[in-house]
Amino acid sequence: MQAVILTAHGGPDCLVVRDDRIIPGAGSGQVRVAVSASSVNNTDIWTREGAYGAPGNPTAIAGWRGVPIRFPRIQGIDAVGHIDSVGSGVDGSLLERRVLVDPAIRENPEQPDEVTGVLGSEIDGAFAEYLVVDAGSVHDVSHSPLTDAQLACLPTAYGTAMGMLDRAEVSRGETVVVTGASGGVGMAAVQLAAALGAVVCAVSTPQHEENLRRSGASFVLDRGGDIAEQLRSVQPSGVNVVVDVVGGEMFELWPSMLKVDGCIVVAGAVAGPVVSVDLRQLYLAQRRIVGSTLHTRRQFERLVDLANTGTVDPVIAARFPLADIRKAQRYFLDKSETGKVILEVGRET
Amino acid sequence: MQAVILTAHGGPDCLVVRDDRIIPGAGSGQVRVAVSASSVNNTDIWTREGAYGAPGNPTAIAGWRGVPIRFPRIQGIDAVGHIDSVGSGVDGSLLERRVLVDPAIRENPEQPDEVTGVLGSEIDGAFAEYLVVDAGSVHDVSHSPLTDAQLACLPTAYGTAMGMLDRAEVSRGETVVVTGASGGVGMAAVQLAAALGAVVCAVSTPQHEENLRRSGASFVLDRGGDIAEQLRSVQPSGVNVVVDVVGGEMFELWPSMLKVDGCIVVAGAVAGPVVSVDLRQLYLAQRRIVGSTLHTRRQFERLVDLANTGTVDPVIAARFPLADIRKAQRYFLDKSETGKVILEVGRET
Repeated sequence: MQAVILTAHGGPDCLVVRDDRIIPGAGSGQVRVAVSASSVNNTDIWTREGAYGAPGNPTAIAGWRGVPIRFPRIQGIDAVGHIDSVGSGVDGSLLERRVLVDPAIRENPEQPDEVTGVLGSEIDGAFAEYLVVDAGSVHDVSHSPLTDAQLACLPTAYGTAMGMLDRAEVSRGETVVVTGASGGVGMAAVQLAAALGAVVCAVSTPQHEENLRRSGASFVLDRGGDIAEQLRSVQPSGVNVVVDVVGGEMFELWPSMLKVDGCIVVAGAVAGPVVSVDLRQLYLAQRRIVGSTLHTRRQFERLVDLANTGTVDPVIAARFPLADIRKAQRYFLDKSETGKVILEVGRET
Repeated sequence: MQAVILTAHGGPDCLVVRDDRIIPGAGSGQVRVAVSASSVNNTDIWTREGAYGAPGNPTAIAGWRGVPIRFPRIQGIDAVGHIDSVGSGVDGSLLERRVLVDPAIRENPEQPDEVTGVLGSEIDGAFAEYLVVDAGSVHDVSHSPLTDAQLACLPTAYGTAMGMLDRAEVSRGETVVVTGASGGVGMAAVQLAAALGAVVCAVSTPQHEENLRRSGASFVLDRGGDIAEQLRSVQPSGVNVVVDVVGGEMFELWPSMLKVDGCIVVAGAVAGPVVSVDLRQLYLAQRRIVGSTLHTRRQFERLVDLANTGTVDPVIAARFPLADIRKAQRYFLDKSETGKVILEVGRET
């Protein structure tokens, strides 16, 4: 089969396109998925670079678990496709179903929601024509009105956004700031928060404003300007929640922009992970910073429901064939278009 | 009456002892308390100094609400005494009751647990022979086996510790680190966490070890040594909760010392409020930093129950007459003894 092999932690040249990989077989309790689409995500790029650091050593070359991943590895956290083979003990009626793969692996029986591995990091992922996962990881989306390409936008971006909004307990009528709002997780958070009935203030650049308003943002703040001033002018009494995937210097603003009992929920830090926090701004007003990775099983099931009812409307910026992965990641990092970058794998169905 | 007047934000010389203050009268819905004891707390010192900073301006001279307080002010957040007069509309049977004053003022009907003011900061407090508060702020401790001096240890130190443990959802069998463990809030957190059935690792200095073990600490870590190494040797898989009132450089350690889903709860920052956080250590393991100030009404009621059943055992380091407030605060800041520093006001009963 065709697959993109990651040979080591490093730059784009560590990604090698091969056409001679052996198709993996589904073991007991597993299914094999013929992949039709994946998408480009920061996490695949950070895992390639080993950009996650380690406890006590922020610059260590490591995957998200704080240690290097094992090579060769097929990356690709987002996977949509059809079930093409089932292992022993798996219901045969799953065959031919169109499925969305939950990329979170949860193998700690004492903490069933703990993410212990991720598709494309601890096990081979979707940058290949076939992948094998536990049968419990696939969710039927045969009847979703969304295309495979649209479905491939969901697992990481919308799963992460769903996890963040849920962990921050966002509810109807609350005010929510979303940073990096034109990116995958950001755009998903704008749509999901608006669908929950929240008032969304999206932080982005003017070129994305129209798309963000169409996705449900009530206000679009220009990150090139004075964000604190812009936010105070539209939400003078502060906001309930900040959904942040940016981190960096801008992070210092957020605690004082929150109401009493407000929450910053963080799932990434594209502008830099090491930030400065004035603890007084947290403790004097019972504010909190909540870390969030991906989603729980229950949160993913809610996302699958939204996919099956067509309640979400993923925006696609561009499509590339899998073999053009390096070009796709370069396009993604350029961030000039709104929405997700799709990788087409095998045939679209 | 005798009272200590704070004349401006500044050093100890801004505290002036006076014997000619007019005794305040209880208005409608209020009670007057003849104060018998108070105690020394960081918050009174920080309020005197104006050391709370302001949003966007960490070095601004301000009270805890981010603006200067109004002068002259009678400080004193902890208050124990007898009800000596009641205003109109207040049940006369409260007269002569021994009471503990809840120092948190909550005047936002939309957020009934929001602390909008604090005794000794927004209204006159316990550094005087008499104070006036709303009748809803006093709690009957007439039948508590604790002395007035012991009761005066409770509101801020134990109230804050109770709020922290509750907001961090500490439960039986969990592992809890307590920093600044020989201080007022720290010692209270050690006792209350041990009473909840948690395994307590106290961070302090060797001279306080015996007192901390007697208060329920299973392990005492020397903050002069390598804390990460000491903690890993007794809790190799990490801890559930860090109860922190220290902040400063040591704060950088805590995120990576937590288990997945772990929590750092913060109510102060004696070693410095502006800290560095690696957001990856939060988001990759769903860890959170929760700010906590004082306590809710319900948490204070639980504390009053513990006082009335004698379940808590406050440790007293020293006692000073109110007029020696400057000497008492100097002794407190020296931190050589374990426990609370009591201010004796009026007659002990």
